[in-house]
Amino acid sequence: METRNFRLTIAYDGTRYLGWQKLGEPGSKDFGRTIQGKLEAILRKLTGEDAEVNGSGRTDAGVHAAAQTANVKLRYDISPEELMAYMNRYLPEDIAVLAAEEVPERFHARLHARGKTYRYRIRNSTVPDVFRSRFEYLVPEPLDLAAMEAAAAVLTGTRDYRPFCASKRTKKSTVRTVDSIRVEKTGDVVELTFHGSGFLYNMVRILTGTVLEAGLGRLDPAEIPEIFAGRRPAGYTAPARGLTLMEVEY
Amino acid sequence: METRNFRLTIAYDGTRYLGWQKLGEPGSKDFGRTIQGKLEAILRKLTGEDAEVNGSGRTDAGVHAAAQTANVKLRYDISPEELMAYMNRYLPEDIAVLAAEEVPERFHARLHARGKTYRYRIRNSTVPDVFRSRFEYLVPEPLDLAAMEAAAAVLTGTRDYRPFCASKRTKKSTVRTVDSIRVEKTGDVVELTFHGSGFLYNMVRILTGTVLEAGLGRLDPAEIPEIFAGRRPAGYTAPARGLTLMEVEY
Repeated sequence: METRNFRLTIAYDGTRYLGWQKLGEPGSKDFGRTIQGKLEAILRKLTGEDAEVNGSGRTDAGVHAAAQTANVKLRYDISPEELMAYMNRYLPEDIAVLAAEEVPERFHARLHARGKTYRYRIRNSTVPDVFRSRFEYLVPEPLDLAAMEAAAAVLTGTRDYRPFCASKRTKKSTVRTVDSIRVEKTGDVVELTFHGSGFLYNMVRILTGTVLEAGLGRLDPAEIPEIFAGRRPAGYTAPARGLTLMEVEY
Repeated sequence: METRNFRLTIAYDGTRYLGWQKLGEPGSKDFGRTIQGKLEAILRKLTGEDAEVNGSGRTDAGVHAAAQTANVKLRYDISPEELMAYMNRYLPEDIAVLAAEEVPERFHARLHARGKTYRYRIRNSTVPDVFRSRFEYLVPEPLDLAAMEAAAAVLTGTRDYRPFCASKRTKKSTVRTVDSIRVEKTGDVVELTFHGSGFLYNMVRILTGTVLEAGLGRLDPAEIPEIFAGRRPAGYTAPARGLTLMEVEY
């Protein structure tokens, strides 16, 4: 049986999980508390193979995805439709395979990703929306939207985002391109939509925390160049719950 | 200090709870796993009083509310705004007080309720919406919408709904008025909206199960009079997760 490469589009509510990346040994408790581990365990049950599900990138513990992309190589005779149906039958209701297709052998979900869209959802209220609270960060203090927009504008570009990365001592390049950070308010909800070539560890959450500090009046957007210059710290890391990976482009 | 009567509008994600009605003694584990118990525990912390929060009606374990109504009498000097802010500060993010107002002493949320709206949400798909799955019932088989509409029409009226009540041996009247059961499809989602004077124990879920059996081709809507006549059983009890109390009228 030839090896076939499947591309999967996956949605998840990350609340119950330790993140995308598998932890521990297959069958261990932690393994099943990761999205990747959950997917691999189901594929192993189906095929008997130890197949690796390559995601476009890791999402942190508690972060959600509306359309994460992954690929997996299987030596198993199954159509993409059957594969998708099988996985959705065994996945819990907080993980879903939205699409499956066969792709050329060389397709790799991480290496070939060209752009990503993340959305951070803030409810600017003292009252949570109980039907959305798993996917929102509740900020009760008043937010200055103009200051948030100004901060967002200064945070975009092609530059060294090391001050906005949780692992500051990495030896890899920390230069990234953030094309846009859109700030939109609808009712009590403020959404920050980030589009870029790729993001460092915790980068979207630290950018969000920085935009929020501007909105709370604790940071003047004009001082953001000081953060890039390493002369003052970036904002705090906004909680995982508000963040959703919306789309991966190839 | 005079006694004051507060009317509260409350939303909750019922997933984690044993239902509205308090169970066990204050302080016990089960007490805090009910919506009423949770609210009363917070009010007791605030006021030191053992105040009873009267809901418009009980919702079952796992059932949600977009706007449950309750009233509570307190001998405590606080404005409705302060009361609401205090409660939201101490409530978990799956329960929220949406409104609080002072009402005449005689107002009683259960006795004065004149009408209720419930909504049952079905996702007719093999793939869950991971962001809504706590509030939806996933039905993968094809549904005949016309049959569901026909069943819904036959199930309305002012009549004895005893066959659609989970506690069949109650000595109380089981006559109720269901003005309308609206069936609406949007994309993969079918919503049943029930409006009536009041509903018996599990009645909305059993009506939903009956409408679903018509949609699945297992029940001819023309046979529904047989259910009212006690000559055949009603449909199954649809799972709690899909049901939300939308509004209570006074």
